[in-house]
Amino acid sequence: MTATKGLEGIVAATSSISSIHDGVLAYRGINIDELAERASFEEAAYLLWYGKLPTKGQLAILQQQLSDYAAIPESLVAQMKLFPSDSNTMAVLRTAVSALALYDENANDNSRESNQTKAIKLQAQLPTIIAAFARIRKGEEPIAPLKNVSLAHNFLYMLSGEEPDPIAVKALDQALVLHADHELNASTFSARVTIATLSDIYSGITAAIATLKGPLHGGANEAVMKMLTEIGSLDNVEPYILNKMANREKIMGFGHRVYKNGDPRAKHLQKLSRGLGLLKGDSTLYEMSVRIEELVTSQKGLKPNVDFYSASVYTLLGIPSDLFTPIFAISRLSGWTAHILEQLDDNRIIRPRAEYTGLTNQKYIPIDLR
Amino acid sequence: MTATKGLEGIVAATSSISSIHDGVLAYRGINIDELAERASFEEAAYLLWYGKLPTKGQLAILQQQLSDYAAIPESLVAQMKLFPSDSNTMAVLRTAVSALALYDENANDNSRESNQTKAIKLQAQLPTIIAAFARIRKGEEPIAPLKNVSLAHNFLYMLSGEEPDPIAVKALDQALVLHADHELNASTFSARVTIATLSDIYSGITAAIATLKGPLHGGANEAVMKMLTEIGSLDNVEPYILNKMANREKIMGFGHRVYKNGDPRAKHLQKLSRGLGLLKGDSTLYEMSVRIEELVTSQKGLKPNVDFYSASVYTLLGIPSDLFTPIFAISRLSGWTAHILEQLDDNRIIRPRAEYTGLTNQKYIPIDLR
Repeated sequence: MTATKGLEGIVAATSSISSIHDGVLAYRGINIDELAERASFEEAAYLLWYGKLPTKGQLAILQQQLSDYAAIPESLVAQMKLFPSDSNTMAVLRTAVSALALYDENANDNSRESNQTKAIKLQAQLPTIIAAFARIRKGEEPIAPLKNVSLAHNFLYMLSGEEPDPIAVKALDQALVLHADHELNASTFSARVTIATLSDIYSGITAAIATLKGPLHGGANEAVMKMLTEIGSLDNVEPYILNKMANREKIMGFGHRVYKNGDPRAKHLQKLSRGLGLLKGDSTLYEMSVRIEELVTSQKGLKPNVDFYSASVYTLLGIPSDLFTPIFAISRLSGWTAHILEQLDDNRIIRPRAEYTGLTNQKYIPIDLR
Repeated sequence: MTATKGLEGIVAATSSISSIHDGVLAYRGINIDELAERASFEEAAYLLWYGKLPTKGQLAILQQQLSDYAAIPESLVAQMKLFPSDSNTMAVLRTAVSALALYDENANDNSRESNQTKAIKLQAQLPTIIAAFARIRKGEEPIAPLKNVSLAHNFLYMLSGEEPDPIAVKALDQALVLHADHELNASTFSARVTIATLSDIYSGITAAIATLKGPLHGGANEAVMKMLTEIGSLDNVEPYILNKMANREKIMGFGHRVYKNGDPRAKHLQKLSRGLGLLKGDSTLYEMSVRIEELVTSQKGLKPNVDFYSASVYTLLGIPSDLFTPIFAISRLSGWTAHILEQLDDNRIIRPRAEYTGLTNQKYIPIDLR
């Protein structure tokens, strides 16, 4: 079979977790538009893992588990204190998640029961790791997680040490719902390639974080914020964007391989961005974003993707831009782990072929004759 | 396009690094049989990276670089001292390589020049990391790398603190040549999926290590040794293997998706295993391995792969079995990095599709009504 660059259009797996059909994204068959408006992140994660929305009792158990598992080993905190304070936050997350395996005696148990528990543990621990490093690098002590609050609430609390605004909690929670799964995106595919050798869930998640880090994937939301910062003012949007286009430079946060008529998640994030701007009494970032969208859509026909309005949303929540992609990871972990469980349910090693285009029939020439 | 489980037979990339045609493995067009007999690992790595065998001058520069870069940051050693002493060695390697990025100010520079330098650095540092942890877990201090010796020599020296036997060095060197690259195997494919988001070389290698760890891939050589240990004696081979077969259990180290008529690397490792057995005056492991091969080949039609005789070779070199897969990683790093460089030369994000088999048109049901 001939090469398809980037495996575009190649079906690499069957999956019953999320679907993208006719521009509609659904988790387990439920339209993301409904989930974004009505579900909590904990409900969405449960849905991805177990295939249905939780009852009150099931949700209470999951919330309890997420509380119980949120602490991270003291020895891991000690390691993170050795990391250089200017470390790339995704490299930190990749390293810390890989290290978590060293403290889990069941790390290599690939039974569904064990991996389901580890998925919940990882879901609980990722926010703690990210918040801990965000404080350690400023010379501050990490803050222990709260009990009996939502994951979004806990993360904002552990970052600042202060009770977060309920509107901020709701906004972050909604952003987490929107990023939770997205069919065979590159990082999810990466997690499946890794687990398919029967490695372990920590390996799969470490690989997924490594893949999400790239600016063609999760790293794009940070790149959008960099662009907004460079632009600096509403007046500068037009000259900046037109200049980029004239130089044929990529405008980050636009277009998507799978959505040709726009990313269904973008409108929800746009609404959040507008709402948070009004709340803060400063809609500059939102207005700049809208103006960029108008220009790029009218001139290039490209529509904003999930990364575009995430940037202003997270900034309005007071989050530093190098934590945007780690937040994406917190959310997508639910999807990654659901895909790992699914891959292991009916596993085969993922081992494609290459089409060889190099030299043939060469001889080994002794070094004196080269 | 319909799903192909495990992407079997799907061409996922073009590549000019290594090829498998008609059961012949070649690096850059040179048959592995020639390279195994005549090339050093440093020559093979140079060949994979630069597309041709090095001149004397080029090889001397590479050897100098491998010497210069072999030390690892003190802060990383301090982290490794915090790892539990019973940590899985591949999980340790995955974590330590991920952490190396934190100490490289050029980690995120994806220019070919920068990544080529990082490839050589990683090649130099992997043996140091593995040897350091092998000592730290026994409560011993890591040993600083020697200057001006081969990579195989240095690794054996850093493990034991003693000058290694030249025959042992030669055997390890040959094993490293044989494992250096293998077209789009699962870990190499994983490295390409990760780098294709324009992440970074440390991300790509961390993902590759995570993938190699699985027993369906690199982890198989350790599993072979576990089997040899369980069997324990030549007399027990037949009952043990026949019992496994009767229970339809997998015999590790046999068969390969790509080679239907035998893995061309196995015969070289068999020869090494025989030679080292004679040298040590104890050919038990070798004879047990031959007997297993006879049984599995005659009864199941499966031939040994690269992992099968590696197990006895490494054991005869005095290496603990949980370092076998890390040694595979030392060797394969040359191929992984060559593939990362090649992927970046003509990159596109690797993002296949899933065939959705789950529920459709579900509604969000409020929690009180579930």
